[in-house]
Order: sequence, then structure tokens, then C-alpha cells
Amino acid sequence: MKVYLDNSATTFLDKNVLDKMMPYLTDVCGNANSLHSFGRDADSAVTKARIQVAEAINASKNEIFFTSGGTESDNWALNGVFEAHKDKGDHIIISKIEHAAILATAKKLEKEGARVTYLNVDKHGVVNLDELKKSVCDKTVLVSVMLANNEIGTIQPIKEVVKIVKSINKNTLVHTDAVQAVGSLPVDVKDLDVDLLSLSAHKIYGPKGVGALYLRTGVRLGKLITGGHQERSMRGGTTNVAGVVGLGVAIEEAVKNLSVNSLKIAKLRDYFAAKIKDGIKDVVFNGHPEKKLSSNLNVSFDGIEGESILQLLDINGIAVSTGSACSSGSLEPSHVLLATGLEIARAHGSIRFSFGKANTVEEADYAFLKLKETVDRLRDMSPIYKK
Amino acid sequence: MKVYLDNSATTFLDKNVLDKMMPYLTDVCGNANSLHSFGRDADSAVTKARIQVAEAINASKNEIFFTSGGTESDNWALNGVFEAHKDKGDHIIISKIEHAAILATAKKLEKEGARVTYLNVDKHGVVNLDELKKSVCDKTVLVSVMLANNEIGTIQPIKEVVKIVKSINKNTLVHTDAVQAVGSLPVDVKDLDVDLLSLSAHKIYGPKGVGALYLRTGVRLGKLITGGHQERSMRGGTTNVAGVVGLGVAIEEAVKNLSVNSLKIAKLRDYFAAKIKDGIKDVVFNGHPEKKLSSNLNVSFDGIEGESILQLLDINGIAVSTGSACSSGSLEPSHVLLATGLEIARAHGSIRFSFGKANTVEEADYAFLKLKETVDRLRDMSPIYKK
Repeated sequence: MKVYLDNSATTFLDKNVLDKMMPYLTDVCGNANSLHSFGRDADSAVTKARIQVAEAINASKNEIFFTSGGTESDNWALNGVFEAHKDKGDHIIISKIEHAAILATAKKLEKEGARVTYLNVDKHGVVNLDELKKSVCDKTVLVSVMLANNEIGTIQPIKEVVKIVKSINKNTLVHTDAVQAVGSLPVDVKDLDVDLLSLSAHKIYGPKGVGALYLRTGVRLGKLITGGHQERSMRGGTTNVAGVVGLGVAIEEAVKNLSVNSLKIAKLRDYFAAKIKDGIKDVVFNGHPEKKLSSNLNVSFDGIEGESILQLLDINGIAVSTGSACSSGSLEPSHVLLATGLEIARAHGSIRFSFGKANTVEEADYAFLKLKETVDRLRDMSPIYKK
Repeated sequence: MKVYLDNSATTFLDKNVLDKMMPYLTDVCGNANSLHSFGRDADSAVTKARIQVAEAINASKNEIFFTSGGTESDNWALNGVFEAHKDKGDHIIISKIEHAAILATAKKLEKEGARVTYLNVDKHGVVNLDELKKSVCDKTVLVSVMLANNEIGTIQPIKEVVKIVKSINKNTLVHTDAVQAVGSLPVDVKDLDVDLLSLSAHKIYGPKGVGALYLRTGVRLGKLITGGHQERSMRGGTTNVAGVVGLGVAIEEAVKNLSVNSLKIAKLRDYFAAKIKDGIKDVVFNGHPEKKLSSNLNVSFDGIEGESILQLLDINGIAVSTGSACSSGSLEPSHVLLATGLEIARAHGSIRFSFGKANTVEEADYAFLKLKETVDRLRDMSPIYKK
């Protein structure tokens, strides 16, 4: 049996999404920038996708810019704001639990002269709003806090973040990385009142290699990728027509089925969590108990290594992760778990189970069975686990 | 009848390429960075594609970095070299006929303190090597000259460029934009002796939204898109697995069939060109008479506008372009044609016909018929054309 419980790393491509992409992988082969019928057919599809993305987050279509994915959107937001608003200040605020796409970019901007404040989070991973209040100043050009965390699923109070920021400095822009949130939570840019927002297709049953940046009308932004007149001259490069069509359909479907899917996924996640609680002792559930993504379950197993759990589950066909897929290859414990105050040993013993719309009770039962066997076995061999 | 003569803007996606991509759009849905079987299956495909790209250009697989396309590769090369080699100098040399992805990036770097020399070209669009010789200095960190031009097809003497550059300053890096050249010419990075090279999938019957940057082992390069550990920590973002698989297959096929396709395409192009020469007077053929891409035919029609020709041909189902698709939306005459010394009026009256492997003699006959009708009709109405 193969059980995929790593839906926060990436989701499968929905058949319906692929079906809608297929014409743009076969017959409709034009460059969306070309001025003939082949180009117009491609451009119509791109425009439709732009409207779909805009409507899904309550934006207007001119506020949506297609990118190669969430990471590019995040990079663009940070670099672009810093570059275009240098006259206003050099200060950026992010949280300590941002995705690598934000963290690494902030580090890069520090080398280019930016002053970056890294906000602490509480034990549930919620960003410290008092610290935020104290940090915003007249030189703050950007605050970037993710809408929901990729590792522990904690949902951030972005509306409050925006209120606090704007009450102190109305010129400070607020960006949110909504890559994990879209499709799990209602995401409304007007309600959130953010200036920029990043999203990605492959986390919501769309294709890999495509995402979007929402940029509120009137907000100045430097370019990350310069070139031709694509994306209203804001992002060069031939548009990935099939990809953006896939993003458009995926986000439309995600929003349409949001409540049904979220409820179903949360129910399965809670069922699985209850089994762990009842059947495996010495575990810690990470993240916020309520304010978290329906898909996410992050658990620390005392006395053993997450990597070992992952490998033994993998042998049994079960896919989970330690931390995010983007940090795999690193032996460092999760910066997110450490930021919540979790001890290093426990951070090393953590597993993220992320559920998707296709997972079943049978899969959860099988995964729990193998998980229990795995944890028991590793703890039997562990020199540090005290029974 | 629909006739697509805009293959330099983009090509259709080859059925064989799509077939090889399909498993990665359906069953194999993992994140190539994940440490479980789903991830490994994706990663194996990415590795295979990396080897295919490397072998196609005689590089090693660790020298290939996947990107979202030619424009990102070009941006990365320029920005990355400038950033990583600031200690060595601030001078960059490019040609005046580079693609917008290079030109716009050079302009951006000028604002960040770079000094940029724009090399002139001769009437055939060949870069002036004497000027190059005089321009390279001890502060020159990068020379970027395209391998073949996208508008007029002229092939540049890159080997000579490299020899000249390295003989003056062995530390100066040489980048070439080979987006149009790959699949039309043999491209061997060791033979060319370049340090960096950009390529794209959608010009060689691969998918849109994916490309690669060749970076010679040992050459330092700043990052353009920061984030996770993807692409050996050089380019963040979840790998577009299906896309890179498509690029790998497309470039392998392109190289395998290069001589057959190039000959076939050149023959059809020459057949079409001969018809124009015989049947339409007052035309100028742009670009180099011999050293040019097999696919390219750029013609100026005296006394009339390229845009009008394009539109009338479009009504008849024939797709051509004025300049590049990336500059569509601009009313400026082609910077490439102006750089060759063509008069502004003639530059405005130019059409690029670009042929592909699927075009037929029947299509060429039909396109010529409609072209002649169009030119005759427009010239009849033209206030400036003197019969």
C-alpha cells in the first residue's frame, strides 16, 4: 500500500486540471505575446486564468502577475519592495518561521544594506504582535509574515498584523506568503488588506513551476526578472500558458470546494491524531491546537530521530516529511520548531504528516499501524529513550 | 489553411516530448526534494533530464541548473556574475542586438553601478570584434553575446569572442544566450569555451516555462532566486518536474535530428525566399546571407508597414512576426534592424518568417501567395511607395 501524507510538499495534479491544460500542451501552441491568431488563442487562455486567480482571492485581474512559483513570488516581493522603496527606508520585518524563500532573501538583502527584524513566535508558532508593534518605524518599508506555516500549519493573524503596521506607518507595505493557505483557508486580499501576496499552483492540485504574485493597484515594485513586455512589462519571459491555465483551474476548484475539502481533510487529520494520542506515548503535537491548517499534523516523538521514522515509513510505502521539502538536504533541526521553543532533540524527532483530499481512512489506519511499529522499534533501539 | 511561420517565437510541443512528460503530470507526483519514494521517483526524472541537457551541449550534469526559461537564465547570468565578481570589476560588455532579457538586465545593472559597453554590429548583424578588443579591460567581469539572433538569425563568432576576451583578461567571463541556437546549430560549451550559456525548452518543441543555465564548474555566481536547497542550493523553488523532463527529451531529440531538420528547414526557407526574390520587388533580406539560422528569414518590404502585413496575413491564417514576440506591444522599430544600419522606414516594414520542422512546401506556397497579394494591396494604398 502506498500512502502519500506529504501534501504540503506538493499535491498530485488533479485530473480535471490536467484536462483543462491539455489543449495548451497540444493544439494551442502559440506564444501569448504574438499578434496573430495562434498568439491570441494563447493570450485568451492566459487572461481567463488571470481572472480565475483574481476572483479566487478577491483581487482584480490587473493585480495578478504570473511567476514560476511561490519562491519566485516571495523573492520578487521582498527584492522588489526593497528596491522600489529605498527612498522611504531600509527596514524590513519578517517572522522567524518564514519559508526559506523569504528567509534567504531577507538574508541576501541584509548584505545589500537592509536592516531586518526577525519576529519571535509563541509556543504555538503565532507571531508576537507586541514585538511587531515595537519594531515598525518610519524606515520600515515592508513587513512579510506568512498566512499559514508550512511545517506546523499555524495560521497567523494577518489582519491584525496589517492593522498594527498601518497604524504606525501607513507607507509600510505588508506581504504575506499564502502558498500553504490558499485552498485551505478563505483568502481575500481586501479582507486581509495586504499589499502583496504569494501563491503557488502545485500545493492546490495544480502543476509545478507556476505561481502568482498579487500586487495591490498603485503599489510600486521593482522587477526581479527583466526582459520583454510580458505581464504588463513587470516580468519578462514567455508565459507558461499551460501552467497558468492549470493554476487558474486549480485555484478556482480549490476555492469552490474549500469548505467540503477542508472539513473532510481536518476530520481525517484529527482521526489520525487521536490514534497517535491514544496509541503512542511521549509525543508532542506542534503548532496551534486550533488555528492551524486542516491538512497539517506535526508531531515530535521523544527519544528518536525524525529521519529514521521517515525512512522506515518510506520502506512501508508511506510518505511523510521532517520539516519542509525545501530544507531537505540540510541536517539542521527545523528553524520553525526551534522558534516555537521546542528543545533541539524534540525538533530532531519531528514528523510532518500532511493530508490531502484523496487520503482515506484506510490509508490513515495503515499509516498509523506502521507508524506505531516504527516508533516502538526505534525506541527499543534508542539509547536515549527512557521507557 | 493555417500556416505557422513564427517558430522563433515558440514551437509546438512535440507529441513525443509530451508523451514522456505525461507520467509526471499524472502518476509520478512527488516533490523532487522529498526524501521518500514519491520524491525519489521525481528526482530520478530530474537527474535524467539534467544528464540529457548536459550531454546535448557537452557539459557535465553538475554544470546544468534548471530555470523557468531563457529569460530567467539570461537574468541570472548577468545579475549573478555582476554580484559575485564585484571585487574584480564593474564593467560588462554586451552587443546592441541582444534579446530584451539581456538588454533590460544590463540597463538595470547600470542603475546599480555597472558600466556597460554596447557593441555595434555590421550590416549583417555580426558583432564588431575590433570594438570588442578595444573594450575589454581589467575591470571587465562579463561579456555576453548571443549565439544566434532571434530576429535576423545571424550567428555570432562566439569562439572568436571568447579568444579575444580571454587573451586580454583571463578573468573575464563569457556568457552566450543560445536560446535560438540550440536545435539549429551544434552547441558545444567546451568547443565554444563559454563560461555560461542560456537555453530554453519552448524553442525546441519542448514545454513553455522551463529552461536551463549552463555554468562552467568553478565559476562563482550570485543567486537570482533564493530559497531552498534545490539545484544544489543555487536556485530555490520546487522543481517543475514535468517541465524539466520535457526539456531533457526535447533537447535530446533536437540534437539527434539536428542535421536532418536543419537541412529540411533551410531548404524550405530558401524555397520561400527565392519566391519572394522572384515575385516581389523592392525587398531587402536582413541578416547574414550565410551565417544564419536555418529557420530564419527576415525581409523588409519597401513602402509598407510590417504590422499591416502581419495583420493581413493573420486574416488568412498565416502567423509571422515583426521583430520578436517579446517586444510586441512596443511601437518602436526593431533595435536589431536599426543596429544593422537599416533605415527606420525599412525597419518598420520588416517581417520575420521563421520556419519549423513541420512546415511544408504547400504551406510555403500558400503563404507566398497571400504574402504577394498582401504586399501588392498595401503598396497600392501606400502614399509613400513609388512604383
